[in-house]
Amino acid sequence: MENILRDDERLDYLLAEGLRIIQSPSVFSFSLDAVLLAKFAYVPIRKGKIVDLCAGNGAIPLFLSARTNAEITAVELQERLANMAERSIRYNGLENRIHVVNDDVINIASRLGYERYDTVTCNPPYFPAHEASEKNLLEHVAIARHEIKLNLEQAIQSASELLKQGGKAAFVHRPGRLLDIVTAMRANRLEPKRIRFVYPKEGKEANTLLIEGIKDGKPDLKILPPLYVYGADGAYTEEVRQLLYGQEN
Amino acid sequence: MENILRDDERLDYLLAEGLRIIQSPSVFSFSLDAVLLAKFAYVPIRKGKIVDLCAGNGAIPLFLSARTNAEITAVELQERLANMAERSIRYNGLENRIHVVNDDVINIASRLGYERYDTVTCNPPYFPAHEASEKNLLEHVAIARHEIKLNLEQAIQSASELLKQGGKAAFVHRPGRLLDIVTAMRANRLEPKRIRFVYPKEGKEANTLLIEGIKDGKPDLKILPPLYVYGADGAYTEEVRQLLYGQEN
Repeated sequence: MENILRDDERLDYLLAEGLRIIQSPSVFSFSLDAVLLAKFAYVPIRKGKIVDLCAGNGAIPLFLSARTNAEITAVELQERLANMAERSIRYNGLENRIHVVNDDVINIASRLGYERYDTVTCNPPYFPAHEASEKNLLEHVAIARHEIKLNLEQAIQSASELLKQGGKAAFVHRPGRLLDIVTAMRANRLEPKRIRFVYPKEGKEANTLLIEGIKDGKPDLKILPPLYVYGADGAYTEEVRQLLYGQEN
Repeated sequence: MENILRDDERLDYLLAEGLRIIQSPSVFSFSLDAVLLAKFAYVPIRKGKIVDLCAGNGAIPLFLSARTNAEITAVELQERLANMAERSIRYNGLENRIHVVNDDVINIASRLGYERYDTVTCNPPYFPAHEASEKNLLEHVAIARHEIKLNLEQAIQSASELLKQGGKAAFVHRPGRLLDIVTAMRANRLEPKRIRFVYPKEGKEANTLLIEGIKDGKPDLKILPPLYVYGADGAYTEEVRQLLYGQEN
């Protein structure tokens, strides 16, 4: 495996998809939020063009590849993460369907093309830049998690620029940013159409927000049934087990 | 009872509160949404001043009177409904705690006073005026349900004008209007702080939205646990039964 893995990297399983992914505890590992977004987003099934922004180690493009035959472009600013994604894609033999672009999400449409894509997904940095400690500002994890190189409005603007009219943009974020997200989406011609709140368990406040908008869509917002991550027994709910492990799929 | 009830009116029970309310199938009957809003809103317990806008036959003020000793003002444009509310309040001996103002919600702060209230509740008309059939435009039910005499933005503006800094405004509406509500709230200095979505049953989309904002509050939105109205057996859930009938309260 020495030609595939570097440093503390390991080759994890995406069980439901029958794929594997290179992760590193010190550099980047995907979160449950990436899984949820990849399953939440509408994608064209047979053909079309998809972009995943802030792709990290490529988890969302890999998940999506199991749901669609569309071309998928993964945009990731950090060279180390983009390289991890590249190697995972090659390991899974998906290099003809997923392309990694190691570039800034800001203004990425000037490179990939304006209004040419059917779906854009994005699991952006969640936390304000000022919450990152100064010594961490250049670390991979800090850049992936904090709005150091990219803020929410910039991510939404790039998504909109890439999308055709009628194309769909799907984001995952924290519920506390709901108002910022919907405001920025509407300011960028993305009309919010579906929201799903994710709750850690019954009786708790939501801690994750899934939202999808349609470019130049008509106002008609649906609030989908809640998604619970853990049951009363502390184990994943049946729905999350199916997303992760593909049971009964 | 001839001195209390008119036409097809009847005297219904508010079981959890031990109160009674005059309703009329042809003129106005309160909905579950009024119950939900009355239980969702934060109210000052011992003293303070509350306004209920679009009070209809006074259901929300009556519900609130069981939770607070604050002064409650019920604002209702339609004379017939305001009169029903008056008679219910007298029947329950609450005329010293609830006052009915038969006036337009638009610009009501010029009569009741600017920035003098702790809490404003409002169950506004939900449906666009153009969806009301022409022959119904003057009917009591149409005016209560459609934005014929009052639209959402006007209701929110009046709520904000009445509230002190730090005062709370709580609304109930349809989830499809979420973006309009939060936009209008922010435009009127009401920062959304708590949202609860109400689902008819598990697995369905939300059909009701409860939202509370604080005047000049800091952004910090919480999405509360979902509320389900009906269980798998088709009967009210335990939570709704408690709200309606006060079981285990």
